[in-house]
Amino acid sequence: MKVWNFNPGPAKLPEPVLLQIQQELLDFQGTGISILETSHRSVAFDKILFGAEENIRQLLKFTSDECQIIFMQGGANMQFFMAPLNLAVPGKPFVYHDTGYWSQKAIAAAKEIGEVWRIKTFENGRFDLDPEYETMQKYLKAAYEHITSNETIDGKRWRYLFDGRFTPPIVVDMSSDFLSRYFRVQQCGLVYAGAQKNLGIAGVTVVIIRNDMLKRNGLHPDKFHCYRTHLGSRYNTPPVVAIYVLKLMTDWILAQGLDNIQDANYQKAKRLYDYIDGSGLYENNVHEDVRSVMNVVFLLKEGYEELVNDLLEHFEDHGLIGLKGHRSVGGFRASLYNAMPIDGVRALVEAMKEFERTH
Amino acid sequence: MKVWNFNPGPAKLPEPVLLQIQQELLDFQGTGISILETSHRSVAFDKILFGAEENIRQLLKFTSDECQIIFMQGGANMQFFMAPLNLAVPGKPFVYHDTGYWSQKAIAAAKEIGEVWRIKTFENGRFDLDPEYETMQKYLKAAYEHITSNETIDGKRWRYLFDGRFTPPIVVDMSSDFLSRYFRVQQCGLVYAGAQKNLGIAGVTVVIIRNDMLKRNGLHPDKFHCYRTHLGSRYNTPPVVAIYVLKLMTDWILAQGLDNIQDANYQKAKRLYDYIDGSGLYENNVHEDVRSVMNVVFLLKEGYEELVNDLLEHFEDHGLIGLKGHRSVGGFRASLYNAMPIDGVRALVEAMKEFERTH
Repeated sequence: MKVWNFNPGPAKLPEPVLLQIQQELLDFQGTGISILETSHRSVAFDKILFGAEENIRQLLKFTSDECQIIFMQGGANMQFFMAPLNLAVPGKPFVYHDTGYWSQKAIAAAKEIGEVWRIKTFENGRFDLDPEYETMQKYLKAAYEHITSNETIDGKRWRYLFDGRFTPPIVVDMSSDFLSRYFRVQQCGLVYAGAQKNLGIAGVTVVIIRNDMLKRNGLHPDKFHCYRTHLGSRYNTPPVVAIYVLKLMTDWILAQGLDNIQDANYQKAKRLYDYIDGSGLYENNVHEDVRSVMNVVFLLKEGYEELVNDLLEHFEDHGLIGLKGHRSVGGFRASLYNAMPIDGVRALVEAMKEFERTH
Repeated sequence: MKVWNFNPGPAKLPEPVLLQIQQELLDFQGTGISILETSHRSVAFDKILFGAEENIRQLLKFTSDECQIIFMQGGANMQFFMAPLNLAVPGKPFVYHDTGYWSQKAIAAAKEIGEVWRIKTFENGRFDLDPEYETMQKYLKAAYEHITSNETIDGKRWRYLFDGRFTPPIVVDMSSDFLSRYFRVQQCGLVYAGAQKNLGIAGVTVVIIRNDMLKRNGLHPDKFHCYRTHLGSRYNTPPVVAIYVLKLMTDWILAQGLDNIQDANYQKAKRLYDYIDGSGLYENNVHEDVRSVMNVVFLLKEGYEELVNDLLEHFEDHGLIGLKGHRSVGGFRASLYNAMPIDGVRALVEAMKEFERTH
């Protein structure tokens, strides 16, 4: 039975990428050794590292005169700590948009470092900042403004990214939608993204930092937690295999074209939302303006809640896995990252229809 | 041509482990998905994580009533920061044994956190502490005593580990010899080891912390840098693939038997040291008492230094890679981790002999 993997991350990878990894696993490109045995100081790894960087620069159209790419360990959680530590400005608060679970984690970490000014965003279901004058004044005084571009658990996202409405530098947690759509990275002071959604396997985090932000001394972090220390991505032994998979994933995205990926992602999500909206059994309560394209959350309508486990079992019987909602919100979640083809969404919708017919 | 990989890490893996990874890469044990796509919240990963922990406990003969195992990211460098932050005791200095390159890195990081009392160890080529009374007094007052059990770059190691001579809790960086020999982990307050030497691929660090050390509040670290936060190894998305390889590596060590591994490692190193000591071309200046079993460093004798590049080329021509010494010390280094068979050492010695004959 064909298995469709809707896990929120680690998540589905494209078959050609998996096949290539398998094929070259015992002998990496004629070196006589496996990529799993390859030194981070080798010529073979140089090519992978520089190739991955070049792919990202090409996809997002920026140069090293503008921003630097760093591959780090520690996930978004370490960035929640490092961003305020490195980018603090004496006397200025951090502005954080509270849009759900992950931004709240970022806020909690930033509060351990300094003063956080929290803005409840998306609270009325839609995105409309239109801040009052007083608010704007506070913005102007911020060290930076933090955004979670896609809330994996809440199924919400910032539809328009970085369109010039922001005054201070913006810091963006893009863990779950980085390279799922184009954005102007030059308009961000700092972007970070764990790899386990659209970029391969867990264990590496892409950090893109604008050159002017690199100059900030923040709260004078210890050497290990200073961004400048990690320029070149080899201060400590980098996760070679995770960066190798990231290189292959960005090769694959380049081959598809980021525009096409973006369109396909939109089509996949639309198909699922359209079906849910017209259904008598399922519902999604997120306003259209902020609905996530990566993570579609849905619930069983009032009166049908006791069918949750039956539905999960039904999905498993159809080879549809990873659809259980996060424990903090319950319900269901279908993660539709780049590697999920429209066929997977079709299979999901068919199974949902069948369940609706028979219950 | 057979390639023998003497890199210091990432390093050689056993062939059966690589074959198993390749065989199950597209379908992990009947799940229909790759281990590269497997969620850290899945039953499949539960088995890997608990299995890896169980293997380590079995190899080192301890229970969770004594010590906890945590799999973390960030390498030894992050532990250089976390150990003093978490284990500080008000008014007490940290005692660090300075035995070479890596202990000096640990010292530099600890100095950013608090007062470090540095002991030059191995300085006279041999290990003999015999501290004066005054020294002992300082020991008694230390928050902990830090040891680098094997100095990868300097080719030195602590021959007798943790034999009761230490008064304060000991903290051990075992990155390059963890699970290459048995030691009593219960006698250590904290042990940490990056995986890329004897435990698989880069990107995961094994931390073993004794239960009494877990209770220390240190300098009240932020949540992310507190050891207690990471109990269970899933506070942030763990590096699933690196932990999977670590599970296979510890399966393999268990199958060999740690005693046999330890004997084999000793035999491999002895063969190489014996040849070097009897040679007219090569030399190793480390006293026998502290010679590393994992990393054998050697130089060309006085008068032959200009042959360095010729020798490296000669090695490459014979499929012997990763033998260049660290840039800070020059010369050569052969890393003989668990996965290197005696045949690899034979091949190296043969090539060294041939070069000696012809130059």
